[in-house]
Amino acid sequence: LFVAEGVRTVEALLASSLGTTGLLHSPALLEDGRGRALLEGAQAIGVPITEISDADLTTAADTETPQGVLAIAAIPRHQLPAPAPGYRLLVLDALQDPGNVGTIVRTAAAMGVTATVSMPGTVDFWNAKVVRSSMGALFTHPVVQSSWEDLMRHLDEHDLPLWAADTAGTVLGPRLEVPAVLALAVGNEGAGLSAQVADRAALRVAIRMVPGVESLNVAVATGILLHALAPFTSVD
Amino acid sequence: LFVAEGVRTVEALLASSLGTTGLLHSPALLEDGRGRALLEGAQAIGVPITEISDADLTTAADTETPQGVLAIAAIPRHQLPAPAPGYRLLVLDALQDPGNVGTIVRTAAAMGVTATVSMPGTVDFWNAKVVRSSMGALFTHPVVQSSWEDLMRHLDEHDLPLWAADTAGTVLGPRLEVPAVLALAVGNEGAGLSAQVADRAALRVAIRMVPGVESLNVAVATGILLHALAPFTSVD
Repeated sequence: LFVAEGVRTVEALLASSLGTTGLLHSPALLEDGRGRALLEGAQAIGVPITEISDADLTTAADTETPQGVLAIAAIPRHQLPAPAPGYRLLVLDALQDPGNVGTIVRTAAAMGVTATVSMPGTVDFWNAKVVRSSMGALFTHPVVQSSWEDLMRHLDEHDLPLWAADTAGTVLGPRLEVPAVLALAVGNEGAGLSAQVADRAALRVAIRMVPGVESLNVAVATGILLHALAPFTSVD
Repeated sequence: LFVAEGVRTVEALLASSLGTTGLLHSPALLEDGRGRALLEGAQAIGVPITEISDADLTTAADTETPQGVLAIAAIPRHQLPAPAPGYRLLVLDALQDPGNVGTIVRTAAAMGVTATVSMPGTVDFWNAKVVRSSMGALFTHPVVQSSWEDLMRHLDEHDLPLWAADTAGTVLGPRLEVPAVLALAVGNEGAGLSAQVADRAALRVAIRMVPGVESLNVAVATGILLHALAPFTSVD
């Protein structure tokens, strides 16, 4: 089970195909039309609803501002999907900041990534802060927690090239030929790429930047790379 | 004056051309070599240093983890710079999240933006959380707090086209001709573009996304747009 907190996130959960086990709300949720509509929607699909005090809700919540509502749902289980044309697999190599990971999942969903896989050392996808910053993307975009062995087997089995984000790599530009199917790894906020990714990567790719600037935020860098490597970009 | 918190941020401040008024640290800073080197560097350039308790440092700090050190420095004052070839002006239209604004300033510095200007309703550039998430970029990248009147006068005076990020706009692609000098506005996290930007924008630009996805995080979207519109991108 995982916890979804806040009006927008719970709305996205109820609109998704995931089953919601239960919903807790404080009296404050009934004060505006959007909150009331949310509760009516949950009731209509048979979600068990419990009203609790604001103080109890804040205690139950992981984030500071649960906005009067949280819901509990079952974690969806996905396998690493097999490649098809336009396949993009995003590999999170020990990313630790929940806000970054949630934002990256949201970006991956928008950029046509097939699935996002996390390596050991990465924050749990179902941490409440990751759920919240993914803005609902976790409820539709397939995410898989995996081991290095399973990922390497998957790459071998499907002959999938692995690229890795690296500020010292080949600068992305229109002349770089992007494979039809691709796995892209992004590394830890501080330490960068793990030895496993560094050993395996067929190509290291960089984002052109002003000389002397150290690095970009990892969620921003991942967004720029996924946009440049998106399966639909080459159509233009 | 503004406050810079944390080892990395204070290191960047001391390495910049800004004058540091004073530095507060707790005994914990002396426990590792990096902290000691920071203090020696500050001492060498004549920064007044005061040791205080961990409890007092936490009270003085705005962020939760000041990492044993904070410094105080004078806010640099910039004017809106006049256009030259490759000029890019980034306009923040009522952005409210300090983490987003700091990350955007960091990204703007890396993407060759000439200056970043904030419109009324935008969080203060010198808020401690903005300073921290800019990772030192605020100490070198020119930022200006302005009014709509002053910005509009600047655009008129220099015949600067204003583009605005809008999910319903023209999709960015290699066929879009980018002006030699350009101002780009990005809107509030929830409300989007203000009436002032909507009225003035010569072009609204969008990022190609999977249909049905609502939006990207504003810092990620700004990163993708600045990368696509960077003055050095067209060189390739």
